[in-house]
Amino acid sequence: MKNLLVAQSGGPTAAINASLAGVIFGALKETSIDKIYGAVYGIEGVLSDTLVELGTIDLEILKQTPAAYLGSCRKKLPNLSDNPKLYQQIFSYFQEKNIGYFLYIGGNDSMDTVCKLSDYAKEHNIDVKIIGIPKTIDNDLAYTDHTPGFGSAAKYVATTVAEIAEDSMVYDLKSVTIVEIMGRHAGWLTGAAVLARNGTRSAPHLIYLPEVSFSKEQFVRDIEALFDKGIHQVVVAVSEGIHDKNGTLICEGGTSATDSFGHAMLSGAGKALENLVKAELGCKARSVELNVCQRCAGHLLSQTDSSEAFSIGESGVACAVAGQSGEMMTFVRISDNPYKVKIESADIHKSANVEKCVPTEWIINGNDVGEELLSYLKPLIAGEVKIQYNENGLPKHLYR
Amino acid sequence: MKNLLVAQSGGPTAAINASLAGVIFGALKETSIDKIYGAVYGIEGVLSDTLVELGTIDLEILKQTPAAYLGSCRKKLPNLSDNPKLYQQIFSYFQEKNIGYFLYIGGNDSMDTVCKLSDYAKEHNIDVKIIGIPKTIDNDLAYTDHTPGFGSAAKYVATTVAEIAEDSMVYDLKSVTIVEIMGRHAGWLTGAAVLARNGTRSAPHLIYLPEVSFSKEQFVRDIEALFDKGIHQVVVAVSEGIHDKNGTLICEGGTSATDSFGHAMLSGAGKALENLVKAELGCKARSVELNVCQRCAGHLLSQTDSSEAFSIGESGVACAVAGQSGEMMTFVRISDNPYKVKIESADIHKSANVEKCVPTEWIINGNDVGEELLSYLKPLIAGEVKIQYNENGLPKHLYR
Repeated sequence: MKNLLVAQSGGPTAAINASLAGVIFGALKETSIDKIYGAVYGIEGVLSDTLVELGTIDLEILKQTPAAYLGSCRKKLPNLSDNPKLYQQIFSYFQEKNIGYFLYIGGNDSMDTVCKLSDYAKEHNIDVKIIGIPKTIDNDLAYTDHTPGFGSAAKYVATTVAEIAEDSMVYDLKSVTIVEIMGRHAGWLTGAAVLARNGTRSAPHLIYLPEVSFSKEQFVRDIEALFDKGIHQVVVAVSEGIHDKNGTLICEGGTSATDSFGHAMLSGAGKALENLVKAELGCKARSVELNVCQRCAGHLLSQTDSSEAFSIGESGVACAVAGQSGEMMTFVRISDNPYKVKIESADIHKSANVEKCVPTEWIINGNDVGEELLSYLKPLIAGEVKIQYNENGLPKHLYR
Repeated sequence: MKNLLVAQSGGPTAAINASLAGVIFGALKETSIDKIYGAVYGIEGVLSDTLVELGTIDLEILKQTPAAYLGSCRKKLPNLSDNPKLYQQIFSYFQEKNIGYFLYIGGNDSMDTVCKLSDYAKEHNIDVKIIGIPKTIDNDLAYTDHTPGFGSAAKYVATTVAEIAEDSMVYDLKSVTIVEIMGRHAGWLTGAAVLARNGTRSAPHLIYLPEVSFSKEQFVRDIEALFDKGIHQVVVAVSEGIHDKNGTLICEGGTSATDSFGHAMLSGAGKALENLVKAELGCKARSVELNVCQRCAGHLLSQTDSSEAFSIGESGVACAVAGQSGEMMTFVRISDNPYKVKIESADIHKSANVEKCVPTEWIINGNDVGEELLSYLKPLIAGEVKIQYNENGLPKHLYR
């Protein structure tokens, strides 16, 4: 009997704990698995010997708890040749703890860790099966139809944009409301704002994704065209990562700091456009940055997303127990309507460090998205999770 | 038989349409009431002859629709002596439409309109009963225990702060997360962040209300003290209206524009404190402005608030039909636990233009709130409304 170790890495989502619950559920079923450990703060917990046992926690409450129950990290492993001792340390720790299976739930950078560790294990004939469970609200992982966490974030974005649209229409005056949505290079989540439209409500009227370049002059003309058509309360969905044709970000100042992965830390595209509208059009303008709320709104989960996140975690365990390693679990879509997916896995070398963006042919005129994206998105936000609340009127969360 | 006219005014809330539904429900029951009209964009709809009939709309969907179904306005009526023709216009319009009852759902400025119109009617012996139905997320109306709309906003704030607290704790590093909450002079909604705490989660660790003056130096010391105690992920709830001892706002630049009522249009207290933390403490800092989401989150209603908002609207009709006028409907709290309230009414001269703030004796050390506020708040966010979703996974809204 071997033990299973699971950890979470990268940015929080509202469904990453559902995948953790799925891993625990799957591991509890496997007679070949003894203890179920969680590493606290991702791979850092392995390096610092900080494990918790997970075999008896409340999986139902875990599933509705946002962010990362085990804590997370943004550590990127060095290349083997740069620090072989680190790899030796990790695998001797695995040996010490009798770890036979290591499941890492995370995004692009976390899949890089899965790739490096599984390569090392294979090269050194170490019998630890290492599997990646995808997770990111950005939906930018390749070789999977979509990522767990994205559907709930998309449901939050669509619902909130619909509500903000209601709010924007209460006064009889010209106004522009700009909603800034997360997504550095991939516009999936910003595109999900399109779901707020229905037969009666045409908001959001304009949608700008980071896959195509953004022109401030065209943006002003786009709004003027709507005013001319009699649409006086304009709602705009805009990605934090919009940039001009030279690649310069539209956020205030046009520059930004970078995080430890060299990713730009963005803020302020919405605020910059709000100021632009005030200066150029002289009408009421405001911006709403959905900020971290879009990735941690556990009270508004997509049923589809939550149950898929659970299933892909459970399947990851089965995949590892079946002897696979160096794989990322994936969703393969069979049909949009009725919505059908199956869970498979893909070689981690293919999927790690590849960023999947919205196809530019799904983007219309640089300021809208097409039916293809709508058909893709619709099933991912379907259904509501019945959240358990405590007696004080707040959703129940599970604490480590 | 007379007709009833209802309108909505001031800022949107998630429960103002529940009050509208209550008015319609109450009016449908009254045999003395013929048609039920709604004025579009508040009193502006009276001046522009823009009415809709409301007798057959879906009250259940209306109750869960955020913002203002009828549209709203921020028009403040001039004093009678400054523009008597305007008053003559309004009352001859009422006569033309056979209006016997006018119910105005709104906040402080709207109660001023109720006051002026009911005074005019009494002085001129005009038989139109005019009643104010309170509404504001700010909870700053006097002579009522609390205002409809506040409880749902408070539930949103508490839930979201709890979720942001989860998000803030995922990384093992020192960080400060500042949540900026609406409330110019009254800190009720910022204070509601305290509801996010429970036995295990101590966030938000610091709460700053606009009722007391704010010191940047003390703020930095407050955070350092938490770091020293081993609390490394600090969550702060802060009102948009915090100001120094001279009354200067803490928002970026310290200055701000004003709206048509002369109220400061605030933004950026959170961003200003984020920059302060980065500069003074050099740790990770971020700010989240809950923005309009806190007043239009129809997907997360307090059951208590929604049903009370409905009841107070219904009672307003009964009050008008019983012959009262120039009154604002009020909640009188009988007990906290078990929570019991009754609906009464108060002379509009008392309540209009009076701002009710959090008692300063309920504020602790300038950076926290006491048990009195917690006991006051708890029942107001209790219970969840079962929201109806459409087949696409979004809450159903009703459109005019």
